[in-house]
Amino acid sequence: MNPTEAAAETRELILTRLIDALPEKVYSAWTEPALLKQWFCPKPWSVASAELDVRPGGVSAIVMRSPEGQEFPSSGVYLEVVENRRLVFTDAYTRAWEPSAKPFMTGIITFENEGGQTRYSARVLHWSAADRKTHEEMGFHEGWGKAMDQLAALLAEL
Amino acid sequence: MNPTEAAAETRELILTRLIDALPEKVYSAWTEPALLKQWFCPKPWSVASAELDVRPGGVSAIVMRSPEGQEFPSSGVYLEVVENRRLVFTDAYTRAWEPSAKPFMTGIITFENEGGQTRYSARVLHWSAADRKTHEEMGFHEGWGKAMDQLAALLAEL
Repeated sequence: MNPTEAAAETRELILTRLIDALPEKVYSAWTEPALLKQWFCPKPWSVASAELDVRPGGVSAIVMRSPEGQEFPSSGVYLEVVENRRLVFTDAYTRAWEPSAKPFMTGIITFENEGGQTRYSARVLHWSAADRKTHEEMGFHEGWGKAMDQLAALLAEL
Repeated sequence: MNPTEAAAETRELILTRLIDALPEKVYSAWTEPALLKQWFCPKPWSVASAELDVRPGGVSAIVMRSPEGQEFPSSGVYLEVVENRRLVFTDAYTRAWEPSAKPFMTGIITFENEGGQTRYSARVLHWSAADRKTHEEMGFHEGWGKAMDQLAALLAEL
């Protein structure tokens, strides 16, 4: 491992799973607001609203709601969109190309066909190892993992 | 002016000029390495090398050389490319989508036809007012202004 790879590793979080649905379905669960709202927040949290302008430079504006009813807006910009294959977004911008208060993460979501199922991977890159650690301590693995279970369950129902 | 606009203003630096050449020419001076090398660094600094992969997600890798021969690599990623009209790039990534050590700026360069000449504008957005100030103190206006003179002179020769 060269130093660059080592540095990258300490700044990233990865989650991967095989989902029993075609990539097109998993991709649509990420890109259609009506679907995303059903799985994106680990229950008992929920999604109060989701506006997804899925194109490079488009805004993703999601409002999460706590069980107590408090709302937490979270927005970002798509950097790369490859239909049914790949989505990249970051919270470093609030819209194209307005810098956010704090560039925290870049998400790279990939959807690969593996014998009719989907190898789904989420790589989350941070600008510092400290931010990666914060994200981990905020419950990244549990939160994203639970959301992923909800996503798989939703797709099994559809 | 609303608070968001006020905040944006303190984080940005702007330079604009009317250049006596068509937008296609000014755009090519930004996108063709052989041309960019001739104007990008205010003399007596120079450009030691320039590799420009001009597409969203492509890398711009420019090495600047001081009069004493010291080399300063500077790289970034293009976020948006509209041929002959608009270029957006940032140093927040070293390549798509590897976070850089320090997200410092996003440059939005526009080329507009104004009666056969080019209204050339460079808007540089920073993630904080402190970074904008640092950039200003590093000599942004003088440096970018001088480079712009060199660009105009180059285009007048071609």
